[in-house]
Amino acid sequence: MYHIDLNCDMGESFGAYRLGEDEKILDYVTSVNIACGYHAGDPANMRSTVELAAAKGVAIGAHPGLPDLIGFGRRNMAVTAQEAYDMVVYQIGALHAFCAAEGTSMRHVKPHGALYNMAARDEVLAQAIAKAIHDVDPQLVLFALSGSQLVKAGISVGLCTASEVFADRTYQADGSLTPRTQPNAMISDDQSAVDQVVRMVKEGVVRSQQGDVVNIQADTVCIHGDGSHALQFAEKIRRVLEQNEISVQAV
Amino acid sequence: MYHIDLNCDMGESFGAYRLGEDEKILDYVTSVNIACGYHAGDPANMRSTVELAAAKGVAIGAHPGLPDLIGFGRRNMAVTAQEAYDMVVYQIGALHAFCAAEGTSMRHVKPHGALYNMAARDEVLAQAIAKAIHDVDPQLVLFALSGSQLVKAGISVGLCTASEVFADRTYQADGSLTPRTQPNAMISDDQSAVDQVVRMVKEGVVRSQQGDVVNIQADTVCIHGDGSHALQFAEKIRRVLEQNEISVQAV
Amino acid sequence: MYHIDLNCDMGESFGAYRLGEDEKILDYVTSVNIACGYHAGDPANMRSTVELAAAKGVAIGAHPGLPDLIGFGRRNMAVTAQEAYDMVVYQIGALHAFCAAEGTSMRHVKPHGALYNMAARDEVLAQAIAKAIHDVDPQLVLFALSGSQLVKAGISVGLCTASEVFADRTYQADGSLTPRTQPNAMISDDQSAVDQVVRMVKEGVVRSQQGDVVNIQADTVCIHGDGSHALQFAEKIRRVLEQNEISVQAV
Amino acid sequence: MYHIDLNCDMGESFGAYRLGEDEKILDYVTSVNIACGYHAGDPANMRSTVELAAAKGVAIGAHPGLPDLIGFGRRNMAVTAQEAYDMVVYQIGALHAFCAAEGTSMRHVKPHGALYNMAARDEVLAQAIAKAIHDVDPQLVLFALSGSQLVKAGISVGLCTASEVFADRTYQADGSLTPRTQPNAMISDDQSAVDQVVRMVKEGVVRSQQGDVVNIQADTVCIHGDGSHALQFAEKIRRVLEQNEISVQAV
Repeated sequence: MYHIDLNCDMGESFGAYRLGEDEKILDYVTSVNIACGYHAGDPANMRSTVELAAAKGVAIGAHPGLPDLIGFGRRNMAVTAQEAYDMVVYQIGALHAFCAAEGTSMRHVKPHGALYNMAARDEVLAQAIAKAIHDVDPQLVLFALSGSQLVKAGISVGLCTASEVFADRTYQADGSLTPRTQPNAMISDDQSAVDQVVRMVKEGVVRSQQGDVVNIQADTVCIHGDGSHALQFAEKIRRVLEQNEISVQAV
Repeated sequence: MYHIDLNCDMGESFGAYRLGEDEKILDYVTSVNIACGYHAGDPANMRSTVELAAAKGVAIGAHPGLPDLIGFGRRNMAVTAQEAYDMVVYQIGALHAFCAAEGTSMRHVKPHGALYNMAARDEVLAQAIAKAIHDVDPQLVLFALSGSQLVKAGISVGLCTASEVFADRTYQADGSLTPRTQPNAMISDDQSAVDQVVRMVKEGVVRSQQGDVVNIQADTVCIHGDGSHALQFAEKIRRVLEQNEISVQAV
Repeated sequence: MYHIDLNCDMGESFGAYRLGEDEKILDYVTSVNIACGYHAGDPANMRSTVELAAAKGVAIGAHPGLPDLIGFGRRNMAVTAQEAYDMVVYQIGALHAFCAAEGTSMRHVKPHGALYNMAARDEVLAQAIAKAIHDVDPQLVLFALSGSQLVKAGISVGLCTASEVFADRTYQADGSLTPRTQPNAMISDDQSAVDQVVRMVKEGVVRSQQGDVVNIQADTVCIHGDGSHALQFAEKIRRVLEQNEISVQAV
Repeated sequence: MYHIDLNCDMGESFGAYRLGEDEKILDYVTSVNIACGYHAGDPANMRSTVELAAAKGVAIGAHPGLPDLIGFGRRNMAVTAQEAYDMVVYQIGALHAFCAAEGTSMRHVKPHGALYNMAARDEVLAQAIAKAIHDVDPQLVLFALSGSQLVKAGISVGLCTASEVFADRTYQADGSLTPRTQPNAMISDDQSAVDQVVRMVKEGVVRSQQGDVVNIQADTVCIHGDGSHALQFAEKIRRVLEQNEISVQAV
């Protein structure tokens, strides 16, 4: 039997600002990555999102980001490895406390946005982030881009890792994501997106933009959580995966 | 044998800004309250302060404050009980992670500034803060103003509490601190300040501004950490307490 | 001929977070109060909102608030008069620069949320805010709660003031707003709300919750900008006012 | 008669945090660049620094930086040209209002830290910053690294520019600063530092690390403002410049 995890970013509301359909999307995913107040989220939303996820039995993870609320953590910043280490420890800890207060546990960590992307390529940054997670709790699972430096760093420090793939993004011959600045970076057709994931899970490969069949490790699929289409797609991918005898379950 | 704890606020530097003589003052105190990034402090300083305190064997506590960096957490804010609960959980968790990463443990929590003062008087706010601490870790000790609503709330939720007294502040007939807006609120003479503490510890009383002898519980004394005089005073109070057969030790 | 201004808070989006239907509501109002980055808003939204308002010929004002993004500037903070002065100067200046860059001018200032409410009652705070506005540009019009200390302070420092009334709030016998904590604080029926404004403008009075007819100065009416109902109400109040021969125009 | 401006960053204190010896250094410099709340500074310090500078007749400029208080604006951030434009308009405006309130005027703008360095090399970013300044007030003088893209951008949009040189930094054959990561980037000997400036002003050249004599435009020299040595150096450079018949005056 095949299996895969579906994960979604959550708890990204802030103060009076609402973002995402967290409660509804929780019916379809098996892991959620909760913003920790740096790129998005605040203590109230962290608490309520932990409560929601715990009530629905969805695995909870921290989603630490860069200290850039105005840029939603999407702008690269020249942070040092030590700074990355420190900001990851801080944010993991904050979410951990809400899990403890709710009587539940934190299962994984997935860096957000620019921090995720920089750590996918930068070995030193990746090591710092992996070490931060391991130092706080070696049982935590590191979610990182499949094939990235961050997966390697996680393994090297002794963490369990989950290789993340994307349903709606195309891939290059070297297994990397097609940059968003290029045409055809996105897969807009839902069926093609789901088909790509089914093949990744069952065959361990993806067809690249160049036409090659490329090996890829797929442990968890990232689902987007905002927009009405997000819900539709979450429902569809979950249904189709199960029709293909792929068990959808947390890592 | 009598005993008392000496505590000091620490880790209040932020980015390029330095505050306090943390390393030196650690030689005299037995507990430190580390700022958690809301009113002061940042992840780098939290880490380094935890390291310093652990190396010197000083008990580590979280020092959560209001989200008011520009006002150093000293300005009252009309936060709800739920907001106070959430911000305390968040900050405790952040510091806890640095303790875990350092292989040490967090021993206590002392709210900072306006949050401390508001919770001393406001029963509902006090309950929310005490519950936040207990929900995260019921083994944590709550440091709060002797005789305050916050001490009562801590006891009512089942926390161990440490009643805090001040060496350099005068007291009123009802056991409360003389407001800083009044003359004679401060004790500027070091010997008088130390004598007040010795009497609090040995006799459990303080002489109020009105001349009454008032009962007071003294488990921990707050020492200030900035200025060269701070170091001098810390050295003196520790020496005189020990000369009076009062053991200076963490709660 | 009677006349009245319709004003609306705007530019309250922040980074990835959207709030309000600014572009649509601009068709109905004659003045907008643009958030300046403290309680809401950011430089990008300030620029784009100034552009939109200028394009539609709507009068532009600054909407300075407390430094409390997470609380949307709605939580009272114990700021000093000097701190209020400084934060108002800062925020006015920031918006002024976007007006200058756009080749338009800033017409008025309306404090936001808790700053507005505190200054309505607190004479010293009101004076500081009025002085800040006057010191930056004595031609600016101060928008403040009708009958408040802030209107008085504005007049005393030599500013033009616009007394603000609310369509959807009930009033007390002393001319103050019924606190939101009381039942009947809000007027939910649109027709009653519009009728109240028409009477304020034409007769200079409002019927209080106690049944008295109370004198009230009405120069500008506050319209809310979020929710689909906001648009509907804006359209209706503008239409009915004009049907009643009340010219809707900026102060 | 030769002339040169001496400029210094100021107003970098924040809340309870003090930085720099602003009041003393004002006796030696002719222009100050005042932090605007993004990388450092706050409204209270902006006001008091404007007052001090105005009282001593020193030319006032804005010192806008990246929104990175924790990193003091020294970490590169991948901001778009539009974002840079917006943050410069915002910060210039904020300082301008304090100048207006004080009855004085703003003379120049010097970007801070990473924003300054990125704009020195990045033509698109440089254009955006220059345009922001020009759009707010075309009379403002742009202070930028001598020979940089930012000087060129300033000229191209029609601003007056002041080419900035450094006393304590060495130069490369192409006129650029030796990167701080290299040995010999800094000139630690005061006399050599001052000599370098005298030659820049009188002969329009600097001797590079490679031994070449390189043409350089020197309109203003950057003086550092923190540390006791800063004061000493400021006093010395001013004295030696005047002994060399170089008039020290604002641009």
